[in-house]
Amino acid sequence: MTELAGPLSPTPRTRLGRKKDRAATERAALHTILDEALVCHLGMVVDGSPLVLPTGYGRDGDTLYLHGSTGAASLRAAGGGVEVCVTVTLVDGIVYSRSVNNHSMNYRSAVVYGRPRVLTERQEKLRGLRVLTDHLAPGSWEHAREVNEKELAAVTVLALDLAEASAKVRSGDPADPPEDVHGVEAWAGVLPIHTRFGVPVPDPELATDAVVPAHVSDRKPGRGR
Amino acid sequence: MTELAGPLSPTPRTRLGRKKDRAATERAALHTILDEALVCHLGMVVDGSPLVLPTGYGRDGDTLYLHGSTGAASLRAAGGGVEVCVTVTLVDGIVYSRSVNNHSMNYRSAVVYGRPRVLTERQEKLRGLRVLTDHLAPGSWEHAREVNEKELAAVTVLALDLAEASAKVRSGDPADPPEDVHGVEAWAGVLPIHTRFGVPVPDPELATDAVVPAHVSDRKPGRGR
Repeated sequence: MTELAGPLSPTPRTRLGRKKDRAATERAALHTILDEALVCHLGMVVDGSPLVLPTGYGRDGDTLYLHGSTGAASLRAAGGGVEVCVTVTLVDGIVYSRSVNNHSMNYRSAVVYGRPRVLTERQEKLRGLRVLTDHLAPGSWEHAREVNEKELAAVTVLALDLAEASAKVRSGDPADPPEDVHGVEAWAGVLPIHTRFGVPVPDPELATDAVVPAHVSDRKPGRGR
Repeated sequence: MTELAGPLSPTPRTRLGRKKDRAATERAALHTILDEALVCHLGMVVDGSPLVLPTGYGRDGDTLYLHGSTGAASLRAAGGGVEVCVTVTLVDGIVYSRSVNNHSMNYRSAVVYGRPRVLTERQEKLRGLRVLTDHLAPGSWEHAREVNEKELAAVTVLALDLAEASAKVRSGDPADPPEDVHGVEAWAGVLPIHTRFGVPVPDPELATDAVVPAHVSDRKPGRGR
């Protein structure tokens, strides 16, 4: 059950080599995955036990910004020096093989390790919020009411360096051994998975003639999807 | 930034109350989330550090079956008594609010805590593999070549009880305060996110007249999507 057992096998804990030829390629893949997904899974150790929370994030260069509630509160309580593992996964397709054993998924995943910093300086914190907003809802930073001082004080923003990070991808056709390709009648192939935005649903309290702005109506999955 | 800060705020670590009226509802919600998603994020503590891996799974009643590679190897090496946190997240929409601060996501998430058992008994292990296959690729257990003894020996299957688990859901319209509803011109509403299966891509080594079976061509997102 090698494939089925590990359709999303883990990324080994590695530092991306800075001098290797493949480092740039790996880093580009890492950035693409982080930019395309919407949520990450933030892992921490709390009282000796693992805790994994879905959390919003955004990327700017080689910095990942995180924010949130209890997750951030746990991190902040611990002085911001807590170790985290941030994992992002995009599932691209189901791989049907000729044997149950070789079934798998096509996927792209990124794993980032590090100790996030809690941002305290005003401009840096606003910058982090802008990156987070541009990821969640591109265009909203310009369109919606800006953050006021009370709101700014109430939010925790974390910055995590992408120094220790890696990407892993499985794509393409099934990988059946020759004896299954030639000896088993079963269908084999890939069922792609697509993520799409639907038709915007206006807030009932909006004026009935309110026009959906282009940054919402024209939004496509991808960068900051 | 309450909402934006925690678009996917964590589920508190709770045991679902068995005698409360809402327990049945909560459990139904938990099952629905687990059945609809394709991958979980498996959190463990390895050498004192958090590790979060995307992993396949399947549910049967109140048992979650997991399998996989390094994650499972870590668990097996530790004798199967290691504590894990399994988190599953479905993102249903982007919530555009009148303020940047209140932007959020509609989502459904499940968090399960426990110590998985490594299955060693043959029938139990096969049962777990069937549940995993039915989740990843419903119909494939009947259609594809069955698991042979060598493959069965090579796979690690884990069973995790859903005793300590919880579900969390955010749905519906933005939640702007009255002063923003009446005082801010920005558009507000929800941009739904849909996950769909595309057109099956046959393996190039299949005969050109091979017919895509109905369990692949007719598959819809949802139970075992």
